[in-house]
Amino acid sequence: MRVLLLNPNTSESVTALLADSARSVAAPGTELVPVTAPRGVPYIASRAEAVIGGAVALEMLAERHHEVDAAIIAAFADPGLGGARELFPIPVIGLAEAGMLTACMLGGRFAIVTFTAALEPWYRECVAWHGMEARCAGVRALDEGFADIATVGEEKAEALVALATRAVTEDRADAIVLAGAPLSGLASRVADRIPVPVVDCAAAAVKQAEALVALRPRKAVAGTYRRPPPKPSVGLPEALGRWIAGG
Amino acid sequence: MRVLLLNPNTSESVTALLADSARSVAAPGTELVPVTAPRGVPYIASRAEAVIGGAVALEMLAERHHEVDAAIIAAFADPGLGGARELFPIPVIGLAEAGMLTACMLGGRFAIVTFTAALEPWYRECVAWHGMEARCAGVRALDEGFADIATVGEEKAEALVALATRAVTEDRADAIVLAGAPLSGLASRVADRIPVPVVDCAAAAVKQAEALVALRPRKAVAGTYRRPPPKPSVGLPEALGRWIAGG
Amino acid sequence: MRVLLLNPNTSESVTALLADSARSVAAPGTELVPVTAPRGVPYIASRAEAVIGGAVALEMLAERHHEVDAAIIAAFADPGLGGARELFPIPVIGLAEAGMLTACMLGGRFAIVTFTAALEPWYRECVAWHGMEARCAGVRALDEGFADIATVGEEKAEALVALATRAVTEDRADAIVLAGAPLSGLASRVADRIPVPVVDCAAAAVKQAEALVALRPRKAVAGTYRRPPPKPSVGLPEALGRWIAGG
Amino acid sequence: MRVLLLNPNTSESVTALLADSARSVAAPGTELVPVTAPRGVPYIASRAEAVIGGAVALEMLAERHHEVDAAIIAAFADPGLGGARELFPIPVIGLAEAGMLTACMLGGRFAIVTFTAALEPWYRECVAWHGMEARCAGVRALDEGFADIATVGEEKAEALVALATRAVTEDRADAIVLAGAPLSGLASRVADRIPVPVVDCAAAAVKQAEALVALRPRKAVAGTYRRPPPKPSVGLPEALGRWIAGG
Amino acid sequence: MRVLLLNPNTSESVTALLADSARSVAAPGTELVPVTAPRGVPYIASRAEAVIGGAVALEMLAERHHEVDAAIIAAFADPGLGGARELFPIPVIGLAEAGMLTACMLGGRFAIVTFTAALEPWYRECVAWHGMEARCAGVRALDEGFADIATVGEEKAEALVALATRAVTEDRADAIVLAGAPLSGLASRVADRIPVPVVDCAAAAVKQAEALVALRPRKAVAGTYRRPPPKPSVGLPEALGRWIAGG
Amino acid sequence: MRVLLLNPNTSESVTALLADSARSVAAPGTELVPVTAPRGVPYIASRAEAVIGGAVALEMLAERHHEVDAAIIAAFADPGLGGARELFPIPVIGLAEAGMLTACMLGGRFAIVTFTAALEPWYRECVAWHGMEARCAGVRALDEGFADIATVGEEKAEALVALATRAVTEDRADAIVLAGAPLSGLASRVADRIPVPVVDCAAAAVKQAEALVALRPRKAVAGTYRRPPPKPSVGLPEALGRWIAGG
Repeated sequence: MRVLLLNPNTSESVTALLADSARSVAAPGTELVPVTAPRGVPYIASRAEAVIGGAVALEMLAERHHEVDAAIIAAFADPGLGGARELFPIPVIGLAEAGMLTACMLGGRFAIVTFTAALEPWYRECVAWHGMEARCAGVRALDEGFADIATVGEEKAEALVALATRAVTEDRADAIVLAGAPLSGLASRVADRIPVPVVDCAAAAVKQAEALVALRPRKAVAGTYRRPPPKPSVGLPEALGRWIAGG
Repeated sequence: MRVLLLNPNTSESVTALLADSARSVAAPGTELVPVTAPRGVPYIASRAEAVIGGAVALEMLAERHHEVDAAIIAAFADPGLGGARELFPIPVIGLAEAGMLTACMLGGRFAIVTFTAALEPWYRECVAWHGMEARCAGVRALDEGFADIATVGEEKAEALVALATRAVTEDRADAIVLAGAPLSGLASRVADRIPVPVVDCAAAAVKQAEALVALRPRKAVAGTYRRPPPKPSVGLPEALGRWIAGG
Repeated sequence: MRVLLLNPNTSESVTALLADSARSVAAPGTELVPVTAPRGVPYIASRAEAVIGGAVALEMLAERHHEVDAAIIAAFADPGLGGARELFPIPVIGLAEAGMLTACMLGGRFAIVTFTAALEPWYRECVAWHGMEARCAGVRALDEGFADIATVGEEKAEALVALATRAVTEDRADAIVLAGAPLSGLASRVADRIPVPVVDCAAAAVKQAEALVALRPRKAVAGTYRRPPPKPSVGLPEALGRWIAGG
Repeated sequence: MRVLLLNPNTSESVTALLADSARSVAAPGTELVPVTAPRGVPYIASRAEAVIGGAVALEMLAERHHEVDAAIIAAFADPGLGGARELFPIPVIGLAEAGMLTACMLGGRFAIVTFTAALEPWYRECVAWHGMEARCAGVRALDEGFADIATVGEEKAEALVALATRAVTEDRADAIVLAGAPLSGLASRVADRIPVPVVDCAAAAVKQAEALVALRPRKAVAGTYRRPPPKPSVGLPEALGRWIAGG
Repeated sequence: MRVLLLNPNTSESVTALLADSARSVAAPGTELVPVTAPRGVPYIASRAEAVIGGAVALEMLAERHHEVDAAIIAAFADPGLGGARELFPIPVIGLAEAGMLTACMLGGRFAIVTFTAALEPWYRECVAWHGMEARCAGVRALDEGFADIATVGEEKAEALVALATRAVTEDRADAIVLAGAPLSGLASRVADRIPVPVVDCAAAAVKQAEALVALRPRKAVAGTYRRPPPKPSVGLPEALGRWIAGG
Repeated sequence: MRVLLLNPNTSESVTALLADSARSVAAPGTELVPVTAPRGVPYIASRAEAVIGGAVALEMLAERHHEVDAAIIAAFADPGLGGARELFPIPVIGLAEAGMLTACMLGGRFAIVTFTAALEPWYRECVAWHGMEARCAGVRALDEGFADIATVGEEKAEALVALATRAVTEDRADAIVLAGAPLSGLASRVADRIPVPVVDCAAAAVKQAEALVALRPRKAVAGTYRRPPPKPSVGLPEALGRWIAGG
């Protein structure tokens, strides 16, 4: 089975972190296909950047979806997920979605813990969009700068462990979702210092992709996630324009 | 006062309908600046198209925001509104937002009535994003084809009146929001055949733009709608890339 | 256009503050008609006083509604608003309603900031009645006495700025609603010291009244805001009794 | 123990129905003190009438509260209940409140069944105010005229049984609250024809009054139901004005 | 009238506390029948123990329900209540249910105050199951050990008064529910040191049992609380197995 | 990896259906260990039976948890899941939980479709307990008898397809969860006749068990799912009593 690991950010180093984490838990027969956004910003951290990243994710999926069995949109708040699920015939899983749903099986409420306060508003909208507010004990973010997006997980490991622990004691979280693609791989290194289960979203996402492929769900032909009817367009990248036109 | 009437669809005819409706209620000193999307689809009707349209709206605002006092994103479910509000220093109002908030002052719950079922899922997500579920009695859509997006309001006037009336009697709606840019101008023609107040979103939006400009709110420098810090980007249209870079 | 600015409190000085604030943003053709409650309490601050003030507001509207195009019930938690909207054929807008709905267009969630803790319970019930809990980041009130209801805005300006700033940093508010008729006019004086947009409710209310009059909504003849059928009564003030009897 | 049975409507015949129903279940030592509103409307059925009735209820309680151990505000949607509970030192129970809370002990969700559609909006607001939406399966009302408020329960018995049965089969109600003071006494006559438990609100209210008196709860001196501080007033009935002034 | 006071814990000393508190407010004709669980744990304090206690409660009710007019499941979070209500023909009331519903008549929101943090998760699930989240200001628990379950109320009286007071000032509670069967009898001893009404759950439960018996509700034969159809079983205690089999 | 497939019902035939469905998607290295309840009812279908089944599930887990890497509680509404998760050190997954969370990745809202109306109330409580109400479009059940629990899926295939289709068109479901252990295996047979993705809960559960085992979450030592402190007990089956005592 081939799984597209689609990074809607332009940072190759973050793609590498995501792929390493996903590979560490992937089943023997799972082949990962990591791709990095050709346009956009190095790291999505605002509503505006998420809209842009969502459109870029659709462009990337239009190019690659026929080569794989499933795709992961590998930025925490799942830019473009709804549109992608509606448009393409393969299972598409969001990084946040996989992390949150997996955390639901490990306790009553999960906390989302991340490395910069800039991400909070977008992450909260993501929780609401997924209808997960009843399961989310809160979003906690460090309120300090960082040196490099590719190594922020290493740099802030101590601070994130402390923050996760506060989420348990102060917010009554039963599980921790370490959020943000750059934190991929951190969970396994700090799990024994946090008193509740910790979820690595890239790892969770690849297992959920494997689960969906194994279950072989059909593409909806009714309901709100059926493929929209063909439509002309102007000025879109060729593959996306063609797919929207029904190609 | 100058108000940008930004149509994120590529249909010039819909822009004309929006502008006519807005002008019919604008105050003497209000100058409308209608613009039509240079790229995208003729009429946004799915989650995927909304993501694309949202990105296009940001590109258009990056080009034009410095020429006006306020902007209206003139597609019903407000594509890109959150990003736009965060990014630009002028008030930005969504078509759906203006229609729904205005309807709130006319009764307890409003119903959203539109011309094609394809729009329902996106509209429902819009209601949820605005936190308006407690005020929304439902979304009702015709379930039939139409001849031309530019004249659908005329073509379907009878059917929409019947649907609005059912929203009152069956869903307990106290007000009707006629939704979708192509229905601009219809409300005033059918108001006397619907037993509760009917809101024309383009008309409501221009009045809300005037209200916000008169109140002169400052641009947030804190909270979740402060302008994001400057960031490099790759491959974005020049004006948007420059603005995201802090220009 | 004539707009009744109905103060359901008996304090003439508060009526003057409301009128000044409203006039500062009113359009050229808008004539304000300020009136002060002839009976009741100087300043409504409890559920019991709100019930009494609501009944007084209906009595005042029965006397004056035929002289104006719209009315504002100018006490923050909108006493009697539902009954007034149902009973009279003109648009009736609440002070809290106008402030909250306007704030919705300026960010994700607003905080309500007021000058005395006595007002909190009533204000919270008002937020709930309007179905605005999803948009309200909290109600914050000073917990200290004040010298004079007519000058409390001046006296407490510093403390209210500090409280509003805490609502932004601690409650994640994106906008501030300065609440309570006696704070009318304060927003414009302190706006540059609060890091998010600040709404003056009297100013917002007059703009919303202008918007509704321009949109010319019909009076509901169905739904829950149609005028109730005529009914006899005993012991009510003459104008209200006559109107309830269908006059 | 003496319990004030306060009818905020002006109909003596309805007061008699309430008293009969309450007496049929009252404990041996419970003395009922029925009183009828001296001003207002014969039967409250709209938001406007509820505001007026709420103010009248406060006036009546100011006159009589020192003569009794507890009071029942005996109109279904509990006009003035919040203000009364805050203002007076005795337990005050609402007719709707007693009916709904009692029904909660008889199943998962209750339906409110009443005799005229005019009451629906006010009843729904009452359910929301009490925070009972999660327990309420719906409000169902007959949509037809009736001959006389004093005998409507008899006249409509068949139709109400049918409506209650539909609430069970269609809305999944586990219990029925027969709502509206004029239906007092009906529950016991029709209970065996409705397949789930049926609550008579007047009967429930007197039992709840007895329960509260037996438990001897203190009057709050903190929280949102403490008595408001003394305040001057103008033009209120003597007893209410004196009590608000701290008398 | 006979009321079964069913303690699903195995502690006889706690049964005695419950019975004392209930007797102190019971009406003259009410005879209490206290019973203690023959198997299970001394004091239920976790989800697992609640499941076990719920099954034991059903076994006890199968043995005794035909001897009484109503039953109280006398552990705070009401283990087995739903099943009991569905299975047996008499009114069954939960300790938490009685405490919370009674508290609803004493203010807007109640706080649940208890003696050990181990109880919090189970208590929160109980509040949610009863649909009471909108009325609950929070659950507050002491975070310290105690000497003996039979005297914990005496031992911790000071600390619980302090905790209840914080619930009023910090969580805006209008009433306090002292939770946990071992705290039975404490409310009356500390009521004058807590500034809002305090509810003793055992006392509230007996009054609610009396109310329900007086109202004589029928057993549901439809809806979700009708008795399930007869079913064979294996390995259940004789009385319960026979009752499930339709006996 | 070994996965306990724990059927809390006493029907061996249903265990066989569950095991067949799970095996059809299990990864090569996954060994299933099916077990059937030694006491209880043949098929849980009410709140009372669920309480009993939950206690039985804990007893079975106490016996077998040390032999496996994860466990599935294989009755749709997950009896005893919370207690099991808190008590035992291995991942425990519920059948309903796995079905619902998997369905969340296939659309916006799922409908639960089952074969008998008796299951509805319990299933609805399950949805609420999991905090999944925002994602659930409804519970739909056939309202007719069936011949044999072991073959009900075959017998009712047509009717269930029709019901699922109605859930799509009338309730706006984007995915279908076929609910109830006896329907295991049906999804793959009818998937092409239902226009949206259909989830087989046993299949989903085994994939989720595999995912959790691969992610190696730690057992919580804090939060609400830490193991409760040791406690004595009376009359419990030996293994469960010993484990509760800390063994």
